[in-house]
Amino acid sequence: MAKYTIGVDYGTLSGRALIVDVETGEELSSAVFDYPHAVMDEALPSGKKLGFDWALQHPQDYIDVLKYTVPAVLKESGIAPEDIVGLGLDFTASTILPAKKDGTPLCFLPEYADEPHAYVKLWKHHAAQAQANKLNEIAQQRNEPWLKNYGGKVSSEWAIPKIWQVLDEAPEIYDAADTFIEAADWLTWQLTGKECRNSCTAGYKEMWNKRTGFPSKDFFKALDERLENVVEDKLSLDIKPMGDCAGTLTAKMAELTGLKEGTAVAVPIIDAHVFVPAVGIAQPGKMLAIMGTSTCHMLLGTQEKQVQGMCGVVEDGILPGFFAYEAGQSCVGDHFQWFIDNCLPASYYDEAKAQGKNIHKFLREKAEKYKVGESGLLALDWWNGNRSCLVDVDLTGMMIGMTLQTKPEEMYRALIEATAYGTRMIIETFREYGVEVNEFYAAGGIAKKDPMTMQIYADVIRMPIKIAGSDQAGALGSAIFGAVAAGKFQGGYDDVFSAASAMGKVLDTVYNPIEENAQIYDKLFAEYRTLHDYFGRGENDVMKRLKAIKKSV
Amino acid sequence: MAKYTIGVDYGTLSGRALIVDVETGEELSSAVFDYPHAVMDEALPSGKKLGFDWALQHPQDYIDVLKYTVPAVLKESGIAPEDIVGLGLDFTASTILPAKKDGTPLCFLPEYADEPHAYVKLWKHHAAQAQANKLNEIAQQRNEPWLKNYGGKVSSEWAIPKIWQVLDEAPEIYDAADTFIEAADWLTWQLTGKECRNSCTAGYKEMWNKRTGFPSKDFFKALDERLENVVEDKLSLDIKPMGDCAGTLTAKMAELTGLKEGTAVAVPIIDAHVFVPAVGIAQPGKMLAIMGTSTCHMLLGTQEKQVQGMCGVVEDGILPGFFAYEAGQSCVGDHFQWFIDNCLPASYYDEAKAQGKNIHKFLREKAEKYKVGESGLLALDWWNGNRSCLVDVDLTGMMIGMTLQTKPEEMYRALIEATAYGTRMIIETFREYGVEVNEFYAAGGIAKKDPMTMQIYADVIRMPIKIAGSDQAGALGSAIFGAVAAGKFQGGYDDVFSAASAMGKVLDTVYNPIEENAQIYDKLFAEYRTLHDYFGRGENDVMKRLKAIKKSV
Repeated sequence: MAKYTIGVDYGTLSGRALIVDVETGEELSSAVFDYPHAVMDEALPSGKKLGFDWALQHPQDYIDVLKYTVPAVLKESGIAPEDIVGLGLDFTASTILPAKKDGTPLCFLPEYADEPHAYVKLWKHHAAQAQANKLNEIAQQRNEPWLKNYGGKVSSEWAIPKIWQVLDEAPEIYDAADTFIEAADWLTWQLTGKECRNSCTAGYKEMWNKRTGFPSKDFFKALDERLENVVEDKLSLDIKPMGDCAGTLTAKMAELTGLKEGTAVAVPIIDAHVFVPAVGIAQPGKMLAIMGTSTCHMLLGTQEKQVQGMCGVVEDGILPGFFAYEAGQSCVGDHFQWFIDNCLPASYYDEAKAQGKNIHKFLREKAEKYKVGESGLLALDWWNGNRSCLVDVDLTGMMIGMTLQTKPEEMYRALIEATAYGTRMIIETFREYGVEVNEFYAAGGIAKKDPMTMQIYADVIRMPIKIAGSDQAGALGSAIFGAVAAGKFQGGYDDVFSAASAMGKVLDTVYNPIEENAQIYDKLFAEYRTLHDYFGRGENDVMKRLKAIKKSV
Repeated sequence: MAKYTIGVDYGTLSGRALIVDVETGEELSSAVFDYPHAVMDEALPSGKKLGFDWALQHPQDYIDVLKYTVPAVLKESGIAPEDIVGLGLDFTASTILPAKKDGTPLCFLPEYADEPHAYVKLWKHHAAQAQANKLNEIAQQRNEPWLKNYGGKVSSEWAIPKIWQVLDEAPEIYDAADTFIEAADWLTWQLTGKECRNSCTAGYKEMWNKRTGFPSKDFFKALDERLENVVEDKLSLDIKPMGDCAGTLTAKMAELTGLKEGTAVAVPIIDAHVFVPAVGIAQPGKMLAIMGTSTCHMLLGTQEKQVQGMCGVVEDGILPGFFAYEAGQSCVGDHFQWFIDNCLPASYYDEAKAQGKNIHKFLREKAEKYKVGESGLLALDWWNGNRSCLVDVDLTGMMIGMTLQTKPEEMYRALIEATAYGTRMIIETFREYGVEVNEFYAAGGIAKKDPMTMQIYADVIRMPIKIAGSDQAGALGSAIFGAVAAGKFQGGYDDVFSAASAMGKVLDTVYNPIEENAQIYDKLFAEYRTLHDYFGRGENDVMKRLKAIKKSV
């Protein structure tokens, strides 16, 4: 009798459930539910205005995703609830909320319904930048040992700056909260009735380390005396590794979802990291790039190395027993879209329309015709700063080589190539620091839809590129963790490795490097590297001075 | 009784005559005649195909300009021929033709009518690049002393490469030609019946120097044994300074033009250089920028200095008794047009159309709203190489500082600012080499039509900018030389200085630097200068290497 598992992927605007065959990885049915409150970045439901750079969510939306999507996939697939062995979920992070000790979010209480700080702070809530800056300054002064595990910088998107913002701006909310908890963990708590925290979010977004724990009380005290005991008072030390079972479904949630009470629920994971098992990666040395508006790189290693400019290294962060490295490029698809929105002449739109083509496709077709190096252009892909390996938001874009004959498609192609060089910089940096990279996988919209870009990447990085096989790889990855939470005796798997090997997928299409192109890209990459270091490593800080002038006027 | 003078301005596609009051400079009437053969860059009139980068003209067109425009201005103004004291003309250069010793162009002879090399090679005939390259190489090897007067490089647009191309490709034409002569001098010869050469073209385009003459026989022999005596055999040593009278109108040409036989004809001048007296400049230290698709800078000095990267210094080159310096920027209006053609999104065209505005005006209005430094952008204005001060066609464009918020109008403004920084580099280089620059004048389309650009220039160079007062400044300048050729006793002037002071014109509008802007531009220019030197002076030759890769694929 076939067994099934359900993964639920919580994105920025909606949640998606997917039902998957445990043995074959076949995807039977999926359903999406848009969050009714979406992202609250201007006002609360009451109409109360929010400040600049705020981004909140409503926790009821997360429950409603379960309520609508799980019954829908059960119904559509016709699978009986008793054949569902497990449930897994992945979530954006750090997406964090204050709650009472029974799990009630503060924003559910009438007395706090009109208080912005009582709501979920979404990953892209950037209003804690002042706290992040102060935190970085103090951590750098104190030479905090954990800082190097995060490329030397903590982001305002992480948990502590957000919690600190609450303390600064609404101390009564900070006091009223018995805990601050990631939405992923809060939802798991709702499902199982038991509170625990996942090692992925704790490691990547809360500065927790499996061996050394959280930063010291001394450090937190240096931030703010009131934060000295923030870990004990407001977080948790009960942190479970990826692949563990978080608990089983309560009667109440069984009723809400239509699943069986007692169904295994996996320890949740961040929505990007969950892609790793979904493409079948269960070994070190295989880098996965999730390519969308920005790119996130995941890589398993066997040792903890402090690689320059990575976003984080977390033991058990993706698969148990491995050190999971994360790096990133802050501007990839966003880059290409900026170009299309701001730099494409009217004549191109007209021509694309006349040919009945999507403008992206039209432009790609023009760009594709160029040989490697033919445009004479080179760009630095820093339109949104540089995440890895320079970790510097103040860097900006650069393009060189334009002539009066330069065409828009050449500049577009140069931007694509620039992001490929950025990826090669990341790969080479890992290697320089002793972390093996010998295979490359890509997931996300660009990987699926843009063969020209993928071929350029293969040529630039000189490695074949395998492409994620599922269009719902996030939910598939969560379903894999659901199957592992159930264990083999219940029809799932005893470890993530065998589950990922069986259920993870790549396409048959592989982009292989073309030697002739790779040779020219080697030369172009050498030029990129020189300019990367010149503008990015302090030889000429013109980008920062221009930004300073910009701010001063 | 008022006296008048006629100037004829020979451009790339047409000639324009203008009749001017000698005393007041008032412009009474003008007429334009388009060259019937325009620019022949694909085929001869016979249909014979031309090679890549060729650009020829037909000398009959120049005569026809006189035939149609001079009678037209006389008629329209109602001025009697006896009240016209002089005639002056200016011409593109080096625009050169082979002729027999009686002045007959070879292309007028039936046996050569189908021979491309028998025609006029227009200034922008670039097919002698191979000869120019070889000439530069040999001149540099021999460390020719005159080379430094031309910024270290001779252009393929100059006379010797063009003559050498004839010798290489059509030695029978070279042999059949009794002389190679600038169109300006050929036309003056037709008008007066006497052959002479003008010091402006000889100096700027034929490597002639008033004190040292032409380059040595040894040098020409080193180029090609057959060129050893090119000066004596095919050019002329009868070179007259600006402001001289070349002769008087012949009976035949009097009949053709409707002017009086014996009317004074001025020594002609290059079409750019003629602007200097037209704006009233008759002293050293006043720089004139003629701003069009490219920019040409003119400056008078009292000494011969070898200023790095200027295009030329010629004694008597513009006004007698002064050393006339020329510098240039190879890409100004072309730059802005490239941006509009290639980088402006459809939405901007739609919006401009909806507002009933010209796209240039629409874009300028958007760009104007930015404060200095607000865009955070900086560009190097090398889309078409750098003429001064680096004299390097292999340099290319660069822009830095882009973010995802960068708007097209910001990039457009950055391109304009880049050309202003380029002008400041030229000014500062002159000063560093001991040539005074203390006033600034601008002429050409941009100077007249684009107040935003002119204000940016004033702020960047920290000097007030005066604008040419005539819309036909070329023809006005030629008319001034016509009045000087006549001399005071015939109702003209005895020297160019008093003529230029009386007849030259600037607008009442002066663009004065705004100190607040200038202070920020000082900072931005410092950044420009650093990048200019980094990319332009050998620290990082990435632009050249990219071009080399481009050529190799």
